[in-house]
Amino acid sequence: MTKYNVIEKILGDRSYPRQNSGQAFAPSNIALCKYWGKRNAELNLPINSSLSISLAHLGTHTTIRMAEGMDSISLNGMPLTLNSRFSHRLIEYLNLFRPERDFYFDVKTDNNFPTAAGLASSASGYAAAARALNNFFGWELEDNLLSILARLGSGSASRSIYHGFVEWEAGFHVDGMDSYAHVLPHRWPDLNLAVLTLSIGSKPVGSTEGMKRTVETSVLYKSWPEKAQRDLDQLRLAIEQKDFELLGETSESNALAMHATMIDTRPSVLYWLPETVAAFHQIWKMRSEGVKLYFTIDAGPNVKILFLRNDLDIVRAVFPQCEIITPFDFSVS
Amino acid sequence: MTKYNVIEKILGDRSYPRQNSGQAFAPSNIALCKYWGKRNAELNLPINSSLSISLAHLGTHTTIRMAEGMDSISLNGMPLTLNSRFSHRLIEYLNLFRPERDFYFDVKTDNNFPTAAGLASSASGYAAAARALNNFFGWELEDNLLSILARLGSGSASRSIYHGFVEWEAGFHVDGMDSYAHVLPHRWPDLNLAVLTLSIGSKPVGSTEGMKRTVETSVLYKSWPEKAQRDLDQLRLAIEQKDFELLGETSESNALAMHATMIDTRPSVLYWLPETVAAFHQIWKMRSEGVKLYFTIDAGPNVKILFLRNDLDIVRAVFPQCEIITPFDFSVS
Repeated sequence: MTKYNVIEKILGDRSYPRQNSGQAFAPSNIALCKYWGKRNAELNLPINSSLSISLAHLGTHTTIRMAEGMDSISLNGMPLTLNSRFSHRLIEYLNLFRPERDFYFDVKTDNNFPTAAGLASSASGYAAAARALNNFFGWELEDNLLSILARLGSGSASRSIYHGFVEWEAGFHVDGMDSYAHVLPHRWPDLNLAVLTLSIGSKPVGSTEGMKRTVETSVLYKSWPEKAQRDLDQLRLAIEQKDFELLGETSESNALAMHATMIDTRPSVLYWLPETVAAFHQIWKMRSEGVKLYFTIDAGPNVKILFLRNDLDIVRAVFPQCEIITPFDFSVS
Repeated sequence: MTKYNVIEKILGDRSYPRQNSGQAFAPSNIALCKYWGKRNAELNLPINSSLSISLAHLGTHTTIRMAEGMDSISLNGMPLTLNSRFSHRLIEYLNLFRPERDFYFDVKTDNNFPTAAGLASSASGYAAAARALNNFFGWELEDNLLSILARLGSGSASRSIYHGFVEWEAGFHVDGMDSYAHVLPHRWPDLNLAVLTLSIGSKPVGSTEGMKRTVETSVLYKSWPEKAQRDLDQLRLAIEQKDFELLGETSESNALAMHATMIDTRPSVLYWLPETVAAFHQIWKMRSEGVKLYFTIDAGPNVKILFLRNDLDIVRAVFPQCEIITPFDFSVS
């Protein structure tokens, strides 16, 4: 089963575009129950279901047009060479959709979150690309199919098709046609995030490679699917009941468990810097003093703090360098 | 099954001492495959087998005599009050051996390793106590029975009955009569350790409590027994074949996996300080440059580096504050 087979199922023959250009925006997202481990690397099919919160207006704007003679790719207003890492991955994705061999794309993509925030751009990037392609070609696909298309570009992009709380069901079919995200009906305007950027350097090990190594060598990873499923159930409950402590504790525990499997990997994958651990201890200290802050952390050194709006001043005072994110408030810039 | 039942099996009726005093020394030890998780808390019966290296002359000297009217306990030359934590635990242990209710002990115990090194003193402490009691009462017990007696005081003390490489078999009997340590016949004089003391403060969570919480709440811990068994097999092989890379990699991976289960605990038990993580990264960086250093770390923030004697100068240069330990060389002080 290849990506081409899946595209075949969704689109049939590749058509020519019906519009001069296709534009779309997709939000970035932060997982509260993490996606860690693939059961199929080609199709980005996950071992466990995951749950995230989309970051409202923070994400990627993409415009797709037809190009002449060769693909043309720009990122944040700057043209990229086609052999850059970013271009290489995007071109491989675009190959899935060319109506003929010598059809070329012009792709302009802009991330509106500060690069320094260390947020993953591939999630919003491939979700915006899938949506922009849908508009460009006039496919008029349902969101669950767009979620599948986005997943073929980047696993976590399957969740960036939606705003708000989003669950990506792992599914079990070989072709992954049951592995897509859906949005949860709950809103939680008071729920805020603060991103603590501790390093903007490139990661020693990319997520795809990190996952692969973990699945192959971590013995503790064998218990991860059970852990993720338990946390997912708790998170759904926490969201339904607006139980912030349950949400925070479960998210933090899930992130730590994911990192625990990385730490158990051979050779060990430790994304934490001394500053990361200092931030953990600081947050725990504050929690022991009654301030309800929790954290989550992706495959990198930066810490994302979960808090309720009424603690905004405390968060700003203790972490003056942090970036505040309001997932349910699109008016804040 | 209580400690008293086990003592009954080993000693029968409690006898009166045959000597005026019993003296003994026992070495401290550092586990390369960690003991983490009890299947029976009363008897300190472990979930997994473990393997350690004893620290030669670094350990505890204990002298036991009869006292009048009440127990008398001194540590490193200083008398202790009987309601101190140290005394309380030791008295509970001594209770197992009193020939009659109003028989009292005078216990002088001295640790010759620097307190600042952050080495566990209960392992050598209870092994020395068991040996000193054996001499005092004239039981003439075999080492495997002494290992069981030591275990009743502190799990890892079962291993401090021996010098060199020591394996503590978990056993499976309810009374733990098959859960004792034995020595491996291999010597490895070039194998050295360096202790990096990063904090001498008391730990936020003691090992016993940490283990209990891990077993009760960590989902990843379910895979720990399998991980420990695999590592134990690899360590035996590494010792047999004097394969330092295998020994180092396996020890490091085992320690990281143990900490991974702690990190996965709810609430999380993270013994690492920012300095701990900085030391990990430093050691990994040096290894990537060809210097064969590996680390292990117990339930605390301090890092123990494993290296071969010919890298001593490098270790001293990079970690000038470290304490060098030569497990197979008793002449070095």
